[in-house]
Amino acid sequence: MPLRRVAIFASLALNVAALALLRHRYVVSHPHHPGVVSLDQQHHVCAPQPGTSGAAASAPSTGKPGVTSDSVINLDHGDPTMFEAFWRETGDAAELVIPGWQTMNYFSDVSNVCWFMEPDFDQQVRRLHRTVGNAAVDGCHVLVGTGSTQLLMAALYALSPADAVQPTSVVSTAPFYSWYPAVTDFLRSGLFRWAGDANSFVGDAYIELVCSPNNPDGAIRDALLGSGGAGKAVHDLAYYWPQYTPITRRADHDIMLFTMSKSTGHAGTRIGWALVKDREVARRMTKFVELNTVSVSKDSQLRAARVLRAVSDGYGGGASRHRLFDFGRRKMAERWRMLREAAAASGIFSLPEETSGRCNFANETAANNHAFAWLRCDREDVEDCAGFLRGHKILTRSGNQFGAEPRYVRVSMLGRDDAYDIFIRRLASLK
Amino acid sequence: MPLRRVAIFASLALNVAALALLRHRYVVSHPHHPGVVSLDQQHHVCAPQPGTSGAAASAPSTGKPGVTSDSVINLDHGDPTMFEAFWRETGDAAELVIPGWQTMNYFSDVSNVCWFMEPDFDQQVRRLHRTVGNAAVDGCHVLVGTGSTQLLMAALYALSPADAVQPTSVVSTAPFYSWYPAVTDFLRSGLFRWAGDANSFVGDAYIELVCSPNNPDGAIRDALLGSGGAGKAVHDLAYYWPQYTPITRRADHDIMLFTMSKSTGHAGTRIGWALVKDREVARRMTKFVELNTVSVSKDSQLRAARVLRAVSDGYGGGASRHRLFDFGRRKMAERWRMLREAAAASGIFSLPEETSGRCNFANETAANNHAFAWLRCDREDVEDCAGFLRGHKILTRSGNQFGAEPRYVRVSMLGRDDAYDIFIRRLASLK
Repeated sequence: MPLRRVAIFASLALNVAALALLRHRYVVSHPHHPGVVSLDQQHHVCAPQPGTSGAAASAPSTGKPGVTSDSVINLDHGDPTMFEAFWRETGDAAELVIPGWQTMNYFSDVSNVCWFMEPDFDQQVRRLHRTVGNAAVDGCHVLVGTGSTQLLMAALYALSPADAVQPTSVVSTAPFYSWYPAVTDFLRSGLFRWAGDANSFVGDAYIELVCSPNNPDGAIRDALLGSGGAGKAVHDLAYYWPQYTPITRRADHDIMLFTMSKSTGHAGTRIGWALVKDREVARRMTKFVELNTVSVSKDSQLRAARVLRAVSDGYGGGASRHRLFDFGRRKMAERWRMLREAAAASGIFSLPEETSGRCNFANETAANNHAFAWLRCDREDVEDCAGFLRGHKILTRSGNQFGAEPRYVRVSMLGRDDAYDIFIRRLASLK
Repeated sequence: MPLRRVAIFASLALNVAALALLRHRYVVSHPHHPGVVSLDQQHHVCAPQPGTSGAAASAPSTGKPGVTSDSVINLDHGDPTMFEAFWRETGDAAELVIPGWQTMNYFSDVSNVCWFMEPDFDQQVRRLHRTVGNAAVDGCHVLVGTGSTQLLMAALYALSPADAVQPTSVVSTAPFYSWYPAVTDFLRSGLFRWAGDANSFVGDAYIELVCSPNNPDGAIRDALLGSGGAGKAVHDLAYYWPQYTPITRRADHDIMLFTMSKSTGHAGTRIGWALVKDREVARRMTKFVELNTVSVSKDSQLRAARVLRAVSDGYGGGASRHRLFDFGRRKMAERWRMLREAAAASGIFSLPEETSGRCNFANETAANNHAFAWLRCDREDVEDCAGFLRGHKILTRSGNQFGAEPRYVRVSMLGRDDAYDIFIRRLASLK
């Protein structure tokens, strides 16, 4: 069953990739392959960083190691470190101080369906959506999750009838995010099961995952099967922000998922949110989070609220000079220009056509500059593009993990400048 | 199947309780009962608190509402707010400052099996266990999770053969933590399934959950079935800390689970950790967390590291006057004395016998002062103790949620002083 294999690949990608790369060959592992970098391949990445006070001096990790011109460049994951430069500029506007005695309680607001959600996070989420105009929040329940992945599982749990004899089919149009089949199937739930490409689905009862702009290829999508009857749709709008795409309409779906990692770049904070219209669905999604992790980190919720407040303040007509989406649009436009030039210089790669639209937020025409490049290798003798690039120490995610041909790869566009510049130079040199 | 009903009750307790109480009758709900407090029953609990700086001024919630002499007293959940008083005393010793640009990366240490764990958290966990002497850490892998609940699921995932035709049976000796059956079964996984009381289990392949001191009754437990062959044990040592029980030996099991919420009182931080001997098991547990929530909040990991550092510093022979376990032992001993006096004054309640042992940490004999009281109502005409107490506006968790008689209830001993004092007065007055 090829789609199960897709799920297996996807479930491995995050940490098998480094190992595979360093071995300079493609590692295909069974679902429980450890897939971590072995001792002789270690990169110690926990060099201390200066904190802004003694309290921050506990040396948070820097994540990936720094790179040099002959380093392995890891563009497999959507690590949004591109945004660090912006947040360094904002000084203490997004700095959080948490006294030792705070956030010790499980509860945040027992009057809310999402009883563990910090009220300020709820308010800042609504404020930002009103500022950007990318999603309708009036009358919606806001739910917080440990990243949007947890809320995706929560939605599957909430939309699957508990008394169904058969698991509910979960589908998405290919190419689909490689994580969808993995997250759906890893516990072999009797409530829901991955059923693959929505184009080939036959049946009435399903949950359709709609990612727009789409991961991996950036396509603007509507539901193929749509909601109604026993069919439900979940809209993953992680990338529906002005730095990536024109905001052409106020999205207004039953369940919409967003995440800090792609909106502001705070991936390590693990905060996502859902906008949910139906109260009973919101209650069941909350119940899932409760059974899965009891609640969601209050430290991270307070941090997220602080960060979202700083983003909205940048567009509040106030004194703030710091405008996240302006920074993001400039960076993404520049990176896409560099990528298209490099692909042209190389001559063996093709990219999705450039598209644009009227952005209601920027109030001008803006291009789609997706967070990932969906790169195709056109060279006749290269069938495994990821393997080909890996041979040149560029780590990407193979198209076959997205239900597509291995001639395609997904390339993260959100890394740090140094790594991105090396990637561009290498790509341009490939013939 | 009564144990499935136990699971259902348990999965509801956390938020049905408030509703049930306010209605002054017992609410039995199906697994997807929303169970939230309805609008006419709201308690707004998000009153601002003074922050220590502008950056902390985003008004974190206070959790549960304050109480007065005729308030409903909620002792259903183990909210560890008793510890707030201690952490207020420590000033900035446990204060964390996070600049806006930090912890944006998914990765923390790609050389670690648990690639998303902050190195300082790992170090502080090992340091605290060496300080307390409650668990062996040498040669163990430390894994971080979104609370120990996520790590419990991770252990079930890691210990269940992926290719098994039948789900692996999960058992625990009754009375067992009401959350175990709920967490095991809520996704109807094909990998593992709740099989109830270990005493009545027949078979070779199982995962035994061993909680010691035991939730709810505080009993010191060893595995009943034990490890070996197709049988595995997971030791939940959430309460194996000097404030609750004498540290009589250095625990040294294959998988040991701990949590911030019961060790330091930081429940809202949602950080738990596992000490795991086998590398492959550690890898599979890490894979579970990855597929479930990608990683674990770095903000909370840094906060936890900061807090654990402050605890160890208190016993490091340094200048720190702040000794968490001394504070905790004093409070717990005082509360248990008050409770035993109240039960005696009432005459209709009985409690587990007082036991004590030699504590290697305190270097003296210490009593077991469990985080929960396992209270039995001896009055002939009261079969539902939880319902009886609810009628007197005391909210507890019924014994039937722990696989025991409804004559028993579990009472949290970790709430704030004001609520606890009112509870004691009310209990003493019941005849």
